[in-house]
Amino acid sequence: MVDDATTDDEGQQQGVYLVEGGSFERDQSYIDDRITADGSSGWPVEAGRYRLVVARACPWANRAIIVRRLLGLEDALSMGICGPTHDADSWTFDLDPGEVDPVLGIPRLKDAFEARFPGYPRGITVPAMVDIPSGGVVTNDFRQITVDMSTQWTAFHRDGAPELYPEALRDEIDDVARKVFEDVNNGVYRCGFAGSQEAYDEAYDALFARLDWLEERLATQRYLVGDTITEADVRLFTTLARFDPVYQVHFKCNRNKLTEMPVLWAYARDLFQTPGFGDTIDFLHIKQHYFLVHTDLNPSGVLPKGPDLSGWLTPHGREELGGRPFGDGTPPGPPVEGEVVPAAHSAG
Amino acid sequence: MVDDATTDDEGQQQGVYLVEGGSFERDQSYIDDRITADGSSGWPVEAGRYRLVVARACPWANRAIIVRRLLGLEDALSMGICGPTHDADSWTFDLDPGEVDPVLGIPRLKDAFEARFPGYPRGITVPAMVDIPSGGVVTNDFRQITVDMSTQWTAFHRDGAPELYPEALRDEIDDVARKVFEDVNNGVYRCGFAGSQEAYDEAYDALFARLDWLEERLATQRYLVGDTITEADVRLFTTLARFDPVYQVHFKCNRNKLTEMPVLWAYARDLFQTPGFGDTIDFLHIKQHYFLVHTDLNPSGVLPKGPDLSGWLTPHGREELGGRPFGDGTPPGPPVEGEVVPAAHSAG
Repeated sequence: MVDDATTDDEGQQQGVYLVEGGSFERDQSYIDDRITADGSSGWPVEAGRYRLVVARACPWANRAIIVRRLLGLEDALSMGICGPTHDADSWTFDLDPGEVDPVLGIPRLKDAFEARFPGYPRGITVPAMVDIPSGGVVTNDFRQITVDMSTQWTAFHRDGAPELYPEALRDEIDDVARKVFEDVNNGVYRCGFAGSQEAYDEAYDALFARLDWLEERLATQRYLVGDTITEADVRLFTTLARFDPVYQVHFKCNRNKLTEMPVLWAYARDLFQTPGFGDTIDFLHIKQHYFLVHTDLNPSGVLPKGPDLSGWLTPHGREELGGRPFGDGTPPGPPVEGEVVPAAHSAG
Repeated sequence: MVDDATTDDEGQQQGVYLVEGGSFERDQSYIDDRITADGSSGWPVEAGRYRLVVARACPWANRAIIVRRLLGLEDALSMGICGPTHDADSWTFDLDPGEVDPVLGIPRLKDAFEARFPGYPRGITVPAMVDIPSGGVVTNDFRQITVDMSTQWTAFHRDGAPELYPEALRDEIDDVARKVFEDVNNGVYRCGFAGSQEAYDEAYDALFARLDWLEERLATQRYLVGDTITEADVRLFTTLARFDPVYQVHFKCNRNKLTEMPVLWAYARDLFQTPGFGDTIDFLHIKQHYFLVHTDLNPSGVLPKGPDLSGWLTPHGREELGGRPFGDGTPPGPPVEGEVVPAAHSAG
C-alpha cells in the first residue's frame, strides 16, 4: 500500500528505508505514458519539447543519461540535473542558479508531478520525462524510457548511434535484464533495506549467485547479449559502478568487492572507459546520495572516503574477446558543455 | 568525563557509540594492579589462583587469548569466555551452562568489578584478570596483561614458549606498538565512532597512512620487530583479523580491504596459519559483537553474510623472507578441550 506521503526513488517515505521485520518490495507503479514516434500515445517525439530530469546519483536515472549520450540525443532532448540529496519532498534542482531548473522554472521535481497529477501519491522519482509546455511529467517509467529512446527517438539519433535494443536480440536482452533487475539492480536494495536477517540472507544469496552467473557468462563474451553494447549492458553497468563505493559497505553486499571478481571487474572497467559510460558517473554524488539520504542506515551522516577508485582507469584486456562496442556505429563525442562531471567527482 | 552509567570496551554507554559532532577518545583508565612473579604488587603469580576473562569478539581480549596460548599458560591460568554481545550491563557468561561462569559463579563480568570496587564507575571490559578466591578483578589493563604474561608468568611457560617481549627489543616493540595502537588498533574505532566528517577524515587518513607504512615495513621482513613473532605482531594481528569482516564495512575503513594490500594480507595469513593465532579467531562472534551491539551504527541489527573468508587458509609465501616464528622455541599444541573455536565460526 502506498499512502499519500511523498516517497522517493526507493518508494519509501523520507528517512525510513529499512523495512522493519521484512523484505523490501519496490513500488513499481509509475506514470507510464509513452513518448512515441507516431504520436499515437498523445505524446509525439519532438525536438525541444521534453526535458529529461535526472540525478547523477541514481542508478535508474543513470541508465537514461548513458543512453541519451550513446544515441546523441542531447540536442533534441535537454537534461535537467537534480542534486544528490533530497529531503521529504524528494529531488530538487539545488545545483542550478537560484536552485530552480532553468528550463522548467521549478525548484523541485515534485512540482512537475503535481503539474501533471495534483496530489500525486506515488514516488517522486528520476528519471522523469517532462513536457516543457505544460510542465507536467509524461513518464517516470525508467524501464520504458531508455527503450523508447532507442526505438522511438530514431529521427534524432546521431550519425553512428549504436543499436542498443536491436529487434533480433530483444527477447534475450529482456530475459537477461529481468534476471539482472531482480537479483542485482534491485537485489542490492533488497539487501540494504532488509529489516530481518532472513530477508537479507535471501537477497544476498540471490545477488551473489547472479553475480557468479554473470562472471561466468562474461568470461567468454565481451558484452551481455550479442557482440555489441546493448541496453542489457547499460542496465548492469549502473549497478556495478555503485557496487564498491556504496552497496558493498552501505547495503552489506560484502561477500566480495567488485574488484575481487576478475571478469565482472574487467567488464565494468571496459564499459567505464567507453565514451558515454564512465563520463556519466559522478562518484561524489553517488556517495552523497546513499550515505546522506538513508539516515536510518547511516545515522552519523558521515561519508566514507573510500574506496580507492583509481583502478577504474586501468587496462581491462577485454578487447581480446573481440566484440564491436558500437557495432556498425561509432562512439559518441565528449559530453556537451554543462554536462561534464567535475574531475574531482570522478575516478582517478 | 566518565559518568556512572555502565560502559563497555569502547568506553561508551550502552547503545551510544557515535560521538556526536566529534572524535572518539578512548577512556584509557583501567584497574591497573599487576600480577607479579615476586608478589611485590600484592598479587603474586600463582597457578590456579586467577581467571582470565575474555570475549573472543574483542580485539583487546584476543591479544591475551593468543599470548596465553603461545606461552602455554592454560594449566596455570584458566579462561572464562563471555558471549559476543552484551546489554547495558556489559559482558555476560551467556555461553556457559546456566549462563554462569563455572569457576567464578557469576553471570556478569560486572559482578567481578563490583566485588573489587562496589559502584565501579568505569568500563566493564575484557580482558580482565580475576582473583578467584575474592572474586574481584585484579586488572583489566590489556596493555599490561600480555606483557606480564611474558615477563611475570615465566615459571609456568610451557617448554618451547617463545620470547614475545625480549628485553633487547622492548624499545622497538613499544615504539611500533604505540604507532599501531594510535592509528590502527584504536584508529579503526576513531573512524567508526566519529560523529563529524572532519573527525572521520582525519582518522581515516592516519589509519591508511599507517597501513601503508606497515605494508612497506613488512615487505622485507617477516615480522614487525626482529625475526620472530613478538608482542607487536600479536597486537597488529587482532585488528587485521577484524578488518574485512567488520571495520571495512561497519567503521567505513574502506580505502581498500585487507585482501587488497598484498604484503599485509600475506602477513596476516602467515600469522593466522601459525598455531595460537588463527585458532583463537571466532569470526561469527566478531561479527555478532560489532553489528549487534552498536545499534546506533547498525540500527537494523542485520549481520552481514560476507566477506568470503576462505582466503585466510591460502598459501602466503612469507617463508621466503626467512624469520623463525618461535625463535629457539616451538609452536604450541592444539587448543585445549573447551577452548576450541567451532569450525562453523572459523575461516574456510
